[in-house]
Amino acid sequence: MSKSRTNCGAGVQVGFGADLHLDLKGSGLRAGLTDALREAVREGRLVPGTRLPASRSLAADLGISRNTVTESYAELVAEGWLTAQQGSGTWVAMRAAPRTARTKPTQRRATYGLLPGSPDLTDFPRLQWLTAARRALTVAPHDAFGYGDALGRVELRVALAEYLARARGVYAEPERIVICSGFHHGLTLMAQTLRARRVQVVAVESYGLDLYRDLLTSAGLRTPPLSVDEYGARTDELARLRGVGAVLLTPAHQYPTGVALSPGRRTAAIDWARTTGALILEDDYDGEFRYDRQPVGALQGLDPERVVYFGSVSKSLAPGLRLGWMVLPRDVVPEIRTAKGHGDYMSSALEQLTLAEFIASGAYDRHVRAMRVRYRRRRDQLVEALATRAPDVRVTGMAAGLQAVLELPRGTEHSVVQAAAEQGLAISGIAQFRYEAEDSGWQLPEQDALVVNYAAPSDSAWAGALDALCKVMP
Amino acid sequence: MSKSRTNCGAGVQVGFGADLHLDLKGSGLRAGLTDALREAVREGRLVPGTRLPASRSLAADLGISRNTVTESYAELVAEGWLTAQQGSGTWVAMRAAPRTARTKPTQRRATYGLLPGSPDLTDFPRLQWLTAARRALTVAPHDAFGYGDALGRVELRVALAEYLARARGVYAEPERIVICSGFHHGLTLMAQTLRARRVQVVAVESYGLDLYRDLLTSAGLRTPPLSVDEYGARTDELARLRGVGAVLLTPAHQYPTGVALSPGRRTAAIDWARTTGALILEDDYDGEFRYDRQPVGALQGLDPERVVYFGSVSKSLAPGLRLGWMVLPRDVVPEIRTAKGHGDYMSSALEQLTLAEFIASGAYDRHVRAMRVRYRRRRDQLVEALATRAPDVRVTGMAAGLQAVLELPRGTEHSVVQAAAEQGLAISGIAQFRYEAEDSGWQLPEQDALVVNYAAPSDSAWAGALDALCKVMP
Repeated sequence: MSKSRTNCGAGVQVGFGADLHLDLKGSGLRAGLTDALREAVREGRLVPGTRLPASRSLAADLGISRNTVTESYAELVAEGWLTAQQGSGTWVAMRAAPRTARTKPTQRRATYGLLPGSPDLTDFPRLQWLTAARRALTVAPHDAFGYGDALGRVELRVALAEYLARARGVYAEPERIVICSGFHHGLTLMAQTLRARRVQVVAVESYGLDLYRDLLTSAGLRTPPLSVDEYGARTDELARLRGVGAVLLTPAHQYPTGVALSPGRRTAAIDWARTTGALILEDDYDGEFRYDRQPVGALQGLDPERVVYFGSVSKSLAPGLRLGWMVLPRDVVPEIRTAKGHGDYMSSALEQLTLAEFIASGAYDRHVRAMRVRYRRRRDQLVEALATRAPDVRVTGMAAGLQAVLELPRGTEHSVVQAAAEQGLAISGIAQFRYEAEDSGWQLPEQDALVVNYAAPSDSAWAGALDALCKVMP
Repeated sequence: MSKSRTNCGAGVQVGFGADLHLDLKGSGLRAGLTDALREAVREGRLVPGTRLPASRSLAADLGISRNTVTESYAELVAEGWLTAQQGSGTWVAMRAAPRTARTKPTQRRATYGLLPGSPDLTDFPRLQWLTAARRALTVAPHDAFGYGDALGRVELRVALAEYLARARGVYAEPERIVICSGFHHGLTLMAQTLRARRVQVVAVESYGLDLYRDLLTSAGLRTPPLSVDEYGARTDELARLRGVGAVLLTPAHQYPTGVALSPGRRTAAIDWARTTGALILEDDYDGEFRYDRQPVGALQGLDPERVVYFGSVSKSLAPGLRLGWMVLPRDVVPEIRTAKGHGDYMSSALEQLTLAEFIASGAYDRHVRAMRVRYRRRRDQLVEALATRAPDVRVTGMAAGLQAVLELPRGTEHSVVQAAAEQGLAISGIAQFRYEAEDSGWQLPEQDALVVNYAAPSDSAWAGALDALCKVMP
């Protein structure tokens, strides 16, 4: 945010992309900040459980001293609005909000959302899913209602084996597939397994979600970044790093820059894994969506004993289902079984059987095909609109997936995101996906850009969202 | 097992209650054991991922030297049938079984199963659940298909708040309820939270599931046991233990001994928690099922800020749904939110909404009432049949829950379990639930007994199971 606005009003980014407007009015700076934060909590704009910015960065954003922020936080902790936890920051206390605000959050929503993460949720095939659920409930053996095997339901693993081989070139036998609740769960299990193998370092891409890096870090793993260029992650750098036990990659469609891992880089990764005995963790989060040609097959097909493949329905169907899968090297299967506690304590057997029916009946293929057509059309409309209305903005990345990267003139990213927020358009700058390793001191070249999830709006909201986007372009 | 049977054939308990018969024939002891284990793996009686008994205990059971067992295991590891992991024992390797055996396990099943853990799975109300699912799919807001809040769906938390207050006397506001995938998941989150609070010791009951103790131990927590007598766990012992940050209890119906925590012991636990600032973890796994009178309310009602209440549908509906809940002290809510990664990455929103509908429509109450009548009748039939056919066997514990404890004459437990297995009746001795802390050297008084889950068989199998049980009684 611009420092010129200090002391009158400032947008502060809190938590995962929620923007908060603080009105710093009142007698003194500290009292003003304290009042503004208390009001934000009371009105539900800062919801319980939200993590506040570190005092240092809020102070920098507001152009005030860090002490002022620290004192203001301390006062609100004493009053019970905030809670402070040693080493994990300051949070909005659960008891802070009035009960009604908590059960019915009054947080204001943007009119249009183009934030990355979700597919179009209005497109969930409710009727077809219900049909699959009915069939699953009818034919489920009684034992499906009991405690399940750690690998997950065999019906789903068999259906996935066929689908993944056909659609993604994955070498997938049912006995090396493990069902999980999505990439977050799969990566948690994998981090546990790597720690049990005494791995201490997992290389990551220099662009990605901090959520997953934090997950690895919390598990006690260091995460040195590989730089990303137009050929994808620089897997050739792996050979120079010491003691790396695994690398986390998004080969089909780098997240969020949108480039594909080049054949040379794919080979470099596999060669490195074979030489060092390390594992490649392949996050194939949107591999089904490629619009210019056939999707490139999964890296896993090159060496199923060195690659752990992760997939889920989060982009293809809905994140809310919490259904994903890992395809494992054979010798990793017992270790993941151990990490899961030797049983399936997470995934509903009925949902697993429903997805198995959904895939086996062809409904999954039909849904993915329909979404591919729709998302492709949206991407074309985005490119076309920008070419006409914002010719200085370049759309980069492949014609694939759910999001596009819009390269902006240098120094404009933050103000565009802010201007969009003021127009009711929620959008992400690429800066929040950039990973600068604290200990390296090494700086990535910074290209100002937006990451635009054109798949997120409903059909009825899409035209308005696109128009709003074009309006805030520099 | 009886040592007199050494070298001809012996039942060895492997994994979770699976009994394995080893035929130690052949030239030498070591070769005989190696052959018998290899055969068991090859034939699928020992399935991939099964943990083998520690060499020390298998040696003791078979009355042979530990070296013989160690060498036999090492040989099978070298051959690839078993895998050994530093510090976590020896396991049947995933690659061990033939492929067909893995996708279609050939493990022989007992004709009748009375093992603890599951309700009658044939009674799952499929039609009513489908009705609730249809309604949930129809009315679900679009955002239900997106990434969810860490607390879980508010619709389910509101429905549970009303239900738990009414049925279990729980002080449950929606904003202190967190949805999880069952007790296993809830306890995992809680162990993580306790570790973050720098807690190092969680007291447990001296009878219980090793699965949960192991979960706490894996999280780095020590688990000293509280002895259990006819008044429940001896919570008065807590004051004598040093540095205990929490205690795990089953107050309504001690698992598996079946006694209720007496009023004095309840008060002692609450007083201890208040004095020391520790937490009580209340596992209310089958609190709805009491047959002689109204269920005793949850301990949590006494002090919602010191008790973490855990419940699930695993006994009331089906474990396969993987739906549970925690009711938390207010100050624990943000910590559990952190442990969950600030999002709901585990539980399907659709299943949560379906359960909310199922509860709100009254279907849950109707199902619990119907099951209560049915399980009560089965318990009465069990007591009656034993009184006639095995008058020396005493049924202890309350008229409650899904399982009864059958006290046996001293020294007969193991042979009864073995004899039952030979008759195709799967049943558990109480020994496997007894927890002897390795470092205390302290021995619990050992009462030979069976833990009989009379709720497990289907209606059509129940009469046969009861008859088979009576036949093997001493």
